[in-house]
Amino acid sequence: MEISRTRDTTLISAAGNYPPILDSGAVDRARRRLAGRIWTTPVVRCDRLDERAGARLWLKAENLQRGGSFKVRGALLAVEQLAAAGSRGVVAQSTGNHAIAVALAARASRLPATLVLPADAAAVKVRQVEETGAEVVLAGTLLADRTAMVDKVRELHGYDVVDPYQNPYVVAGQGTATAELLDQVAEGGGRLDAVVVPIGGGSAIAGACLAADGHDVAVVGAEPEAVPAFTAALSARRPVTVPARPTLADGLRPERIGDLPFDIAHRHVAQVITVREEAIAETLRAAFLQARLVVEPAAATALAAALAGAKGLGTDVGVLLSGGNVDAQVIRSVLGDRAEEAGGS
Amino acid sequence: MEISRTRDTTLISAAGNYPPILDSGAVDRARRRLAGRIWTTPVVRCDRLDERAGARLWLKAENLQRGGSFKVRGALLAVEQLAAAGSRGVVAQSTGNHAIAVALAARASRLPATLVLPADAAAVKVRQVEETGAEVVLAGTLLADRTAMVDKVRELHGYDVVDPYQNPYVVAGQGTATAELLDQVAEGGGRLDAVVVPIGGGSAIAGACLAADGHDVAVVGAEPEAVPAFTAALSARRPVTVPARPTLADGLRPERIGDLPFDIAHRHVAQVITVREEAIAETLRAAFLQARLVVEPAAATALAAALAGAKGLGTDVGVLLSGGNVDAQVIRSVLGDRAEEAGGS
Repeated sequence: MEISRTRDTTLISAAGNYPPILDSGAVDRARRRLAGRIWTTPVVRCDRLDERAGARLWLKAENLQRGGSFKVRGALLAVEQLAAAGSRGVVAQSTGNHAIAVALAARASRLPATLVLPADAAAVKVRQVEETGAEVVLAGTLLADRTAMVDKVRELHGYDVVDPYQNPYVVAGQGTATAELLDQVAEGGGRLDAVVVPIGGGSAIAGACLAADGHDVAVVGAEPEAVPAFTAALSARRPVTVPARPTLADGLRPERIGDLPFDIAHRHVAQVITVREEAIAETLRAAFLQARLVVEPAAATALAAALAGAKGLGTDVGVLLSGGNVDAQVIRSVLGDRAEEAGGS
Repeated sequence: MEISRTRDTTLISAAGNYPPILDSGAVDRARRRLAGRIWTTPVVRCDRLDERAGARLWLKAENLQRGGSFKVRGALLAVEQLAAAGSRGVVAQSTGNHAIAVALAARASRLPATLVLPADAAAVKVRQVEETGAEVVLAGTLLADRTAMVDKVRELHGYDVVDPYQNPYVVAGQGTATAELLDQVAEGGGRLDAVVVPIGGGSAIAGACLAADGHDVAVVGAEPEAVPAFTAALSARRPVTVPARPTLADGLRPERIGDLPFDIAHRHVAQVITVREEAIAETLRAAFLQARLVVEPAAATALAAALAGAKGLGTDVGVLLSGGNVDAQVIRSVLGDRAEEAGGS
């Protein structure tokens, strides 16, 4: 994959408040910069899932995005900004998708990159980072392990950190997925009552809150019951670290929400739905066999929340299917045994 | 799923030549009648597949269509025409997708329906027909077995036959998928050099030929090497029955091309690419893990032909991903063993 660089890099320095002031205008500016460089992913409808939900579901298929997730949106903006400022290279930690996205963006900006992933990351994510030519470092299994390694790489190479949660370009970029969804539904003559977004480190939901600002749409978070970092932060009124329990949703395993996303999201989020592991697996199967989309468990978490909670959310509910980087053995596993029951239109 | 009936059924009798004169105008009229009743399925791009093909591939994702395949397009038109003419019920034979489509269309038109499928049809297809409330009859494994059973049902119940290949409404309807693809690519500022369409009984390729008429785009057929019914017909200059050999592409197993599709297609088709079974399986895996779309083997056959032949077809090649009704065990099977090698962006 080759993502072309924006020719007019002077725009960055010219537009003084692009994007540090994080509002819906930052998302608009991010969309303009990304135009033509990412796919405008489709909004997919599925009768069978609508029947289950008791509402119309509008599935924003970012599993079909370049790099297999919405993360390329924020990474492109953050990395090109660093490149324009004379960066000598970039480093980032990630459960996988932000790493793929930063690696692709670094290649587009001709910068070296080191990506830090957990030792038990999804193999398909590690492989995609490696295929860009970027360096992969596996570090422990906890968020703290990865951030410590990022600090080391930064000191060693003088690389710039592209934080997956704290970088304002990243947050504004991630918001473009929700902004696009709102526009696409409106173009089809529809109107969303709510949008359901998965919560890992928080950039997706923070971006969704920015994009939804000024629209009459409720932003609903979905997180695994196993790692309820946002729910815990809402209780504590600040980000707190929750125990790192295993979850099928590898992309949602960060055990602490970022400060910046929490600051944006805690005021705007209408509701957080926690999803049990069995529901994540069952919904992954439904996404394959009913919506006919290959999504990863993080995306299935948002869909599961929408299926469970949609009736209370309104007649029209958007769902951010955040990515599709799922290991083949996970697909095989959830399609085993009970798979035949889940088939259908 | 509930597909609403067109209110203005008088259009059918009013428009005298809708559609018996099969030309691109028939496809235009079919599109107008289908508007708002089927999904406008997305055209999906995938960098990784483009790299393999050496061309830009534009994947028309009819696996995301209502009923899981493009067949609902033709069936809706054919069945509503029969309903308006006072039909007491419909019967059709099919390898599966036309059966699902006719069953859904019959339910929308409140007509009883009997669908004749092969005894070894994909389980997911049989189940979806049953779920509409239609009657399912399994008859042998050959096209001749099914057509004989259709005749019996017609005589017994006085039902009207909705032939999957010979009905002009069906052929015009199937053409709307290709017409939509051409428009969607043009809206994105692109232009197709060729479109690759799978060949079973022939309605898809005949429809594609109608849709492509007047556009400077080559229509290319793809069929399994195991059942080269169109290739054989081209040699014989008329439809002939080829030996019924097993193929993973259950939707492409009809061992004889229909007379009407052959009549339309043999003059227009630029090329037919035959695809080996191993390539169908491998491409199915690539569709899951690289394009992140759940497609059925018939659709993978067209994609495999495009991957193999795209360099000779031009810089921009459309592919009709005809459907997504694939049994879970087929997915599990093609994701086994070598699956990990196929992962990626």
